[in-house]
Amino acid sequence: MRCWIARRAPSVPASIERVSLSEFDLIDRYFRSCGASRADVRVGVGDDAAILECPAGAELVAAVDSLVDGVHFPHGSPPASIGHRALAVNLSDLAAMGARPAWALLALTLPAAEESWLAEFTAGFAALARAHDVALVGGDTTCGPLCVTVQVLGHVPRSSALLRSGGRAGDVVFVSGTPGDASAGLAIEQGRLPGAGEAAAYLRERFLYPAPRLALGECLRRHASACIDVSDGLLADAGKMARASGCGVEIAYEEVPVSQELARAVGAERARELALTGGDDYELCFSVRPPQVARLLSELPPERWGYTRIGMLREGPGADVVRDGAVMSFSHSGYDHFPTST
Amino acid sequence: MRCWIARRAPSVPASIERVSLSEFDLIDRYFRSCGASRADVRVGVGDDAAILECPAGAELVAAVDSLVDGVHFPHGSPPASIGHRALAVNLSDLAAMGARPAWALLALTLPAAEESWLAEFTAGFAALARAHDVALVGGDTTCGPLCVTVQVLGHVPRSSALLRSGGRAGDVVFVSGTPGDASAGLAIEQGRLPGAGEAAAYLRERFLYPAPRLALGECLRRHASACIDVSDGLLADAGKMARASGCGVEIAYEEVPVSQELARAVGAERARELALTGGDDYELCFSVRPPQVARLLSELPPERWGYTRIGMLREGPGADVVRDGAVMSFSHSGYDHFPTST
Repeated sequence: MRCWIARRAPSVPASIERVSLSEFDLIDRYFRSCGASRADVRVGVGDDAAILECPAGAELVAAVDSLVDGVHFPHGSPPASIGHRALAVNLSDLAAMGARPAWALLALTLPAAEESWLAEFTAGFAALARAHDVALVGGDTTCGPLCVTVQVLGHVPRSSALLRSGGRAGDVVFVSGTPGDASAGLAIEQGRLPGAGEAAAYLRERFLYPAPRLALGECLRRHASACIDVSDGLLADAGKMARASGCGVEIAYEEVPVSQELARAVGAERARELALTGGDDYELCFSVRPPQVARLLSELPPERWGYTRIGMLREGPGADVVRDGAVMSFSHSGYDHFPTST
Repeated sequence: MRCWIARRAPSVPASIERVSLSEFDLIDRYFRSCGASRADVRVGVGDDAAILECPAGAELVAAVDSLVDGVHFPHGSPPASIGHRALAVNLSDLAAMGARPAWALLALTLPAAEESWLAEFTAGFAALARAHDVALVGGDTTCGPLCVTVQVLGHVPRSSALLRSGGRAGDVVFVSGTPGDASAGLAIEQGRLPGAGEAAAYLRERFLYPAPRLALGECLRRHASACIDVSDGLLADAGKMARASGCGVEIAYEEVPVSQELARAVGAERARELALTGGDDYELCFSVRPPQVARLLSELPPERWGYTRIGMLREGPGADVVRDGAVMSFSHSGYDHFPTST
């Protein structure tokens, strides 16, 4: 892609042009060997497009997500965290389908090519990519406001993917991990919560370096009726899964798991509220048919796999949180990038 | 993906929040049925990821490119052109591999959700998608500076893709279409060239709505030794193809094709310079082994397919333009997004 402004616009300050590497050097140095090496990559970074071999009997699974500076992460975030998160949020989408990731493409828009920033960014990206055997097979770098878009491609055995729409009323609903931690970590990053102590360090880590639940997602193909990844808040995303399944969801307030660190940082009440509405968790919320629950608990022991029963799908629309027999009201039941004016 | 700033940042002006549609309505209304319908899309827009069926015997081809407001197109460009170009530049990458496109994913970052803008943007995207039987299977919309990233996925029969690296010294080099038109069209869009008259209308159209050479790319699998799409300027991209092939390239100045409209708008000399260095063309530059040239010309008649012989690959590095036996010097032999300071 041609990026004409840097050459043609007289308004571009000279300092923007005084960077230390050409684009081709950048790509060579940082992106060519970023991530895992895979035998199924026939042509990777460096040609007009990548050429990849799909395994027989599998379906291709594709997801894309963008991270925008000051929107999805605070301005000045550690570059390694930005690289990690840009890949993690996409891997989390594949986890929610029960898919195994294979390849990633990276479109990186950045104001200037600073070597130290790029080195840290790619280190964060590459560490997570290698941990999950993901090869970076293509990319695009352009000048502009900092924005990172990653596309991840992976596979599931034919007709075995987990969908949001497979649930039905009566199915038991679970969530992995301890949602809410990341939103507290973000608040610490932004100075809205005190940042000292071990609990704060743990919570920051949970925002900066989320762990996509890929192994759990693959195992859930044999157990779950529906699945979604929790990115916009547990209540909102459980509600989306329920709606896609043509029903509603009821979550038991007292059952929502909360980490000790979160409770210590914000108190038990606020912790559970953040667990329900916080977002940035990248955990999995999934439903299981009642007769399958015993097999789930036996084959994937919750204490080892780290998931918790939190409620059930029910007839009728909506997503409710029930406490002591009464439905609670939340100010933010979900998140909407472009809220409707009222 | 969670986009926390719109809800949490007190500095966001109220006007940004006063938009008319929620994100989910937006996705439903504009993206769910954008582009072609394809039987190989098992799950499209609306779940965590798309599920796609790859044809047997084919390799997957994947490309990604971003368009940034004020960088890849002038601020205030027609939304239909932005939608068209965001897809076209990626389809052009697939054309250069000899691949047939099938699916696209769209990551759209925009400052506010204006219905009229979105309607025009998706109309431009969808018209080109349908023309090439491309289904939009996934996407992501977030708030932020206007930036459009598209990933295109397609197929080639196993081991038949065109690469940049397949050329060798002696191969004859061709280019499709009339490069340079788009750079003049951009100059008109920016008010740097007069915009009146039929020639100007043609040149603007060439910038705003480039035609990816997909049919030619597929046919070239049987003829070309190497191929690249011309996005950064013919001389620069021919040079990249030559370098990837381990050789250099010599282009005959007088053979470089120039449209009548471009010659009329800027004069014959400047026209040929733009054809060599202008960029944004999305034509194909390709090489053919000398013994194969006769078959190429007979099976794909140049007057019907619109391509021109412009030079040859040669031993040694570099990309030269030769006129009357002398090597010419160009101020911009290529474009570099992040130029090295000198």
